Amino acid sequence: MEEEYVDPSPVWDSLDIDLFVKVANNTIFSPFFLMLVPTFYLFQGAKVTDFTVVSSFVYLVVVSTFWAIKWLSHLQYNKASFLYAPRPLEWSDQIVVITGGSSGVGELLANTLAVKSVTVIVLDVKPIHSQNYNINYYKCDVSKWEEVDAVSKKIIEEIGQPTILINNAGVVQGKLLLDLDPEDVQQTFNVNTLSHFWTLKAFLPGMIEKKKGHIVTVSSIMGLHGVAQLSDYCASKAALVSLNRSLRSELDKRYNCPEVRTTLLCPGHIHTPLFATVNRPNQFFFPTLHPIDVVKPIIQALDDTLGHTILQPFYANFTPFLSVLPHWVADIMTWFSNADFAMKDFVKLSGRREAEGPAPTVDERSNHVKSD
Amino acid sequence: MEEEYVDPSPVWDSLDIDLFVKVANNTIFSPFFLMLVPTFYLFQGAKVTDFTVVSSFVYLVVVSTFWAIKWLSHLQYNKASFLYAPRPLEWSDQIVVITGGSSGVGELLANTLAVKSVTVIVLDVKPIHSQNYNINYYKCDVSKWEEVDAVSKKIIEEIGQPTILINNAGVVQGKLLLDLDPEDVQQTFNVNTLSHFWTLKAFLPGMIEKKKGHIVTVSSIMGLHGVAQLSDYCASKAALVSLNRSLRSELDKRYNCPEVRTTLLCPGHIHTPLFATVNRPNQFFFPTLHPIDVVKPIIQALDDTLGHTILQPFYANFTPFLSVLPHWVADIMTWFSNADFAMKDFVKLSGRREAEGPAPTVDERSNHVKSD
Repeated sequence: MEEEYVDPSPVWDSLDIDLFVKVANNTIFSPFFLMLVPTFYLFQGAKVTDFTVVSSFVYLVVVSTFWAIKWLSHLQYNKASFLYAPRPLEWSDQIVVITGGSSGVGELLANTLAVKSVTVIVLDVKPIHSQNYNINYYKCDVSKWEEVDAVSKKIIEEIGQPTILINNAGVVQGKLLLDLDPEDVQQTFNVNTLSHFWTLKAFLPGMIEKKKGHIVTVSSIMGLHGVAQLSDYCASKAALVSLNRSLRSELDKRYNCPEVRTTLLCPGHIHTPLFATVNRPNQFFFPTLHPIDVVKPIIQALDDTLGHTILQPFYANFTPFLSVLPHWVADIMTWFSNADFAMKDFVKLSGRREAEGPAPTVDERSNHVKSD
Repeated sequence: MEEEYVDPSPVWDSLDIDLFVKVANNTIFSPFFLMLVPTFYLFQGAKVTDFTVVSSFVYLVVVSTFWAIKWLSHLQYNKASFLYAPRPLEWSDQIVVITGGSSGVGELLANTLAVKSVTVIVLDVKPIHSQNYNINYYKCDVSKWEEVDAVSKKIIEEIGQPTILINNAGVVQGKLLLDLDPEDVQQTFNVNTLSHFWTLKAFLPGMIEKKKGHIVTVSSIMGLHGVAQLSDYCASKAALVSLNRSLRSELDKRYNCPEVRTTLLCPGHIHTPLFATVNRPNQFFFPTLHPIDVVKPIIQALDDTLGHTILQPFYANFTPFLSVLPHWVADIMTWFSNADFAMKDFVKLSGRREAEGPAPTVDERSNHVKSD
């Protein structure tokens, strides 16, 4: 990749709305912090009926109620008990399969898990460049059932039954609907959606047998809305949001495996080769994520042994509401985010098919020379 | 089909929650009806400050506000003006393409439009049985781009540019995730999702040229949620909900064709061969639709020349909220609707592939003899 180098895990947070939310979550939206406020006033000699004490207590109750609803929802999703937390994960016992693990988020995740002495299995069409001997690379085009079937049998024989599956492989065409070639549409759905069915078919039976495991589905905020020049991508990712729900229902009610966890990831724009040539919107309200911002909550979810729905960055939390709010709210939001024009100068760098030829270089692109 | 005969357009409404909602929408939820209430009290001699007058006026304002928001949202979706309605549709000038038009909803729609002297083009793998000479049948497997490409060229040459496209073809496998054969998953996505990309690629350019047209996307309430034993179906239909949004964005902002309308249909269970063998839930709260219940609003939307989002029956209006409400609300709703078990005795009758052989007969099914 001749793109500018992007540090996958920067030391500092950048100054954007997510930093403010992070601070607020630990202060004015934190029940634990807010508990101190009326207590502090009382210790200062205020009476229980004083306005400051009553109002800060009412605010505490409101915030706590909100957190309780969220927490109960999280427990219900996992059919978990609030009396005791699940046992922490034995990292060294885990065998983790990561699809599309040779670049972007998958690569960072593979490397991060490998240093936790997890057995990592990377499935990708191109090899991962890593010296870590915990990483096992298997060449596999996950969009093809035959390849997944053959490679999975080899993996189970050579390494063992995977305990965690991270379905992360993805491809973007970035074309308007009528510019999409039939091969583009097929590639998008085969790589982004059907591959999940194939890997589940291959690795889920082993987890159901042990009644333990974790499936991480990497979708996108684009799976929660539809924007211009990404019709196929959005549709393929929306299918994954739905698949995660059906999977949860089947595991709970039909396979009786609530402890096979399901985590859904819907990130916004991430600094990776996949979306390298996107026109980035306002970086304060719609900050671009670093791969580490996404890897952290995945590892947290795996460590919890509880399924999560991870929406990142902060603005991603609003996208599920776009489908229930009036259309003008959605239109204002998409106008504000410039989402319908973000792909205007997009160039497909990763996941190019043989017939598409090599990606244009930076020079070629700046000269507006197109490869095809 | 040896199934019990189901009248596609019954004369009477059945007694269910939708009937109550229908009545309520014309009375206690109708601003026009409610306007009469305070007026009536005033004419009876009540004073403007009387409780009955004030309270009925406040209620009128609340209901009217709700309707205004809904109406403005509808206008915004169509980039339409509230000063004048669009010209009514010249039905006899329309050329309507209906995919999957030889059975179920597609068949009734084809026949209904044909008697309105619309030129109807049915694309299906099996011919439509109809005497109406306005119906033109073209054999076409819409899941294959090559067939859609070839047939669409023939249609444009022989009949003309279609002005309305109704993407209705669909298939259901009704298997648990791990029971799905690779061919099942491929068929589901090819028929339910990719066919939309193919027909749009074939027929949308003609509409964009004239800056007029209407695309009807037949999704399902299953596209708004995910349930057990329908993982592939739900995912393929969720992709369509997303596609409709992307399509709207591209038409508005990238092709500058707001008058190419887009209508999304998300119906619940309909009496058709597709879902004939489903365990029907409580018929009062979750009534099964008749094909006519779905055909009516489609024709209404086409007649309006305005795009709509059609959620039917009444309970379908709540499904978009499932993704933003806490998980226990969604779990209670799915438990109440029995959605995760509705497919337990499902038998695939329509859309069977050659390798699957013929559908088992009613006798075979009642004897629990499975065809494969």
